[in-house]
Amino acid sequence: MEVLERLVELLVILVAAKVGAEVMARFRQPAVIGELLIGALIGGSALKLVGGADGGLLSTLAEIGVILLLFEVGLETDLRSFTRLGTSALAVALIGVATPFVLGYFAVRLLPIGGGSTELAIFMGAAMTATSVGITARVFADLRRLHTDEAKTIIGAAVIDDIIGLIILGVVAALLGGNGEFSAGVVVGITAKAVGFLLVVVLVGTLVAPLFFRLLLALRVEGSFVVGSFVFAIAVGLAAERLAGLEPIVGAFAAGLVAGQTRFSDRIQAELRPIAFLFVPIFFLFIGTEVELAAFGNTEILVAGAVISLLAIVGKVVSGVGVMSRSIDRRLVGVGMIPRGEVGLIFAALGANELREVVGAGENAIVVLMVVITTLVAPVMLHRMLRRRPLEPDSVEEATTSAMGKILDSPVTGSPEQDATQQPPPEG
Amino acid sequence: MEVLERLVELLVILVAAKVGAEVMARFRQPAVIGELLIGALIGGSALKLVGGADGGLLSTLAEIGVILLLFEVGLETDLRSFTRLGTSALAVALIGVATPFVLGYFAVRLLPIGGGSTELAIFMGAAMTATSVGITARVFADLRRLHTDEAKTIIGAAVIDDIIGLIILGVVAALLGGNGEFSAGVVVGITAKAVGFLLVVVLVGTLVAPLFFRLLLALRVEGSFVVGSFVFAIAVGLAAERLAGLEPIVGAFAAGLVAGQTRFSDRIQAELRPIAFLFVPIFFLFIGTEVELAAFGNTEILVAGAVISLLAIVGKVVSGVGVMSRSIDRRLVGVGMIPRGEVGLIFAALGANELREVVGAGENAIVVLMVVITTLVAPVMLHRMLRRRPLEPDSVEEATTSAMGKILDSPVTGSPEQDATQQPPPEG
Repeated sequence: MEVLERLVELLVILVAAKVGAEVMARFRQPAVIGELLIGALIGGSALKLVGGADGGLLSTLAEIGVILLLFEVGLETDLRSFTRLGTSALAVALIGVATPFVLGYFAVRLLPIGGGSTELAIFMGAAMTATSVGITARVFADLRRLHTDEAKTIIGAAVIDDIIGLIILGVVAALLGGNGEFSAGVVVGITAKAVGFLLVVVLVGTLVAPLFFRLLLALRVEGSFVVGSFVFAIAVGLAAERLAGLEPIVGAFAAGLVAGQTRFSDRIQAELRPIAFLFVPIFFLFIGTEVELAAFGNTEILVAGAVISLLAIVGKVVSGVGVMSRSIDRRLVGVGMIPRGEVGLIFAALGANELREVVGAGENAIVVLMVVITTLVAPVMLHRMLRRRPLEPDSVEEATTSAMGKILDSPVTGSPEQDATQQPPPEG
Repeated sequence: MEVLERLVELLVILVAAKVGAEVMARFRQPAVIGELLIGALIGGSALKLVGGADGGLLSTLAEIGVILLLFEVGLETDLRSFTRLGTSALAVALIGVATPFVLGYFAVRLLPIGGGSTELAIFMGAAMTATSVGITARVFADLRRLHTDEAKTIIGAAVIDDIIGLIILGVVAALLGGNGEFSAGVVVGITAKAVGFLLVVVLVGTLVAPLFFRLLLALRVEGSFVVGSFVFAIAVGLAAERLAGLEPIVGAFAAGLVAGQTRFSDRIQAELRPIAFLFVPIFFLFIGTEVELAAFGNTEILVAGAVISLLAIVGKVVSGVGVMSRSIDRRLVGVGMIPRGEVGLIFAALGANELREVVGAGENAIVVLMVVITTLVAPVMLHRMLRRRPLEPDSVEEATTSAMGKILDSPVTGSPEQDATQQPPPEG
């Protein structure tokens, strides 16, 4: 494939992603859904416009996209807020991880789904665990409820279950991608490696990262800061894979956590934003291209998808019982935890590639279906539950400060220089 | 090649380019030189760290880089300034294109160089025509002489000869890449097609571009503006190639000219800057990887390179006679026109790829050598000539407003939000 043909493919990808996102935005639905659907449309199982003999261009750009996405999630995760938010968020997160996993596991084993192997059951349960921070934040922002105790609990819990989900991802990838030796020892070993890597990155990184970013600022060649930040995210991602056998996104998340603790956090976000705008949608579109559309013509898969989606919803609604305070609406918290997103889709990507021998095209379609349904269902349920309550107009501004929410699906709010938070406002 | 191996290659490319650029910056030399040299070092003829079986990743990213570079040059080119600058710049440009072309042509034919074919002679002459706007502006900025009449004449002339150089590039690529029919009719036909395409893009674009960018701003999904601008540059570039047989960069330059006339010009520049910082150095590094280092061990090539470089210097110094005003130093203008840059290197890239049958590895090395020598020689000569004159301290600020100069080689001056020119300065 020639260079120019690859550029044509890149244009098709970027334009398609924007069209899909924009159509969904007009229907007040998350842009990710549009990017997924348009990907399925132009992908290998339908129009075949992209992802053929492109020498891995699409998958490489998609990998950069998801690494940048998780780096930004890490950047925005305030480690100190965990202690402030108390135990409610932690309890909600743990229950919200365990329940869907158990429900998903037994659904695959007992119904059975896709042959009902233990491997597939673990994969399906794991794919159901993580609430999407970005989509959840966006839904509450849309409803002008981002400042409520419920929203804060949900977002804290979602961040925690993202971390747990990423560790589970590392364990599942290593377990199912390896020799398939199931023992408590192996699971503990992999978990220890994952947790250990994250701890080392956070501890060492907290010391080294400020020096690294200060060095970047001292360089004479302009652009060193943004290119250096980009390199930092990808390098730690690759280190996670090479040194600890984790997915690169786990490393990228840890890199983001570390960079987010430095005083350069705002600048890194501001400078990386245009680059993230370019690459992140390619990841969601790429997942779409991997979906076998034919699978959705199969009644068995549609039924299984409906069952898994229902269990995914129930599993998260149950997590509301983790709320300790009487003043917080448990049902609202449970419903707010429903949307799955990037981590679920990363499982789908894993299923379509590294774990192809364990996860069939049909089971992968079930995961994508589950992500789409939970993401579509939650806003509708929340709208109904919140209709009676008063609005909080002041929270609109806060709603638009989440860079990740922006990248995922929020409307245009202003030019980048207006968003730059470091700059003192003109006081004429 | 796996996705992760491709990411490792990308990291090597980005880090190497930054190291090369930074080392050169410390020696007060243009960063492009460092990117070229490091590319030659890690490329296929030396360390072989990049560009092997990467499925065209490096060449694709490099093509995106050069398209963005020419788009930015176009963005900064003020069409109206041509009339203001008068006829001196035009005369300097025309003489500065014609003389090196003729000198280069006859040097190849008569010495002879590389067999002395007519095709190679045309290629070599054409590669010597275009002064680098970016490097020239940067050199005068370094010398605090950007506001002099000499500097304005040189930059005006350099922009004009960039346009002429790009048209010559289109003609040469079509002529030498095609059946090799040499006739005045073919040359006129291709030139007409190139000029016609540029005129159509500028005329139609002037009407359509404001609507396009206003549409982007009206979209709800954030990031649409920057992704849309990126798509605009690449799409017009591809259109140039598909519709008029021109190099994509010619289309990208025209797209930049058009976008630069809209009121969105500053915002497009500001938002694309981080993306350009990422991709543009990859182009210069890529050119370096294509250089056959073994060629420089060949005395014949070194001698030919020295001769061509000397003629390239003489050809531009002569162009100073085009200056009409008595108050402008002709010798200074001529010397200021010496540095070749991006257009010369684009010829080298063409020689290493599409025109591989006409241009050997040795002749290609001569072009790269010519670019490096002219770029290194000019600042030294200008320094000597300007030592006696008074400084103009006020021009420092202006010197750093050229985004292209920044991308090519200028030192860090501030965070992107500080550079945003739209924003009113705080007046506390």
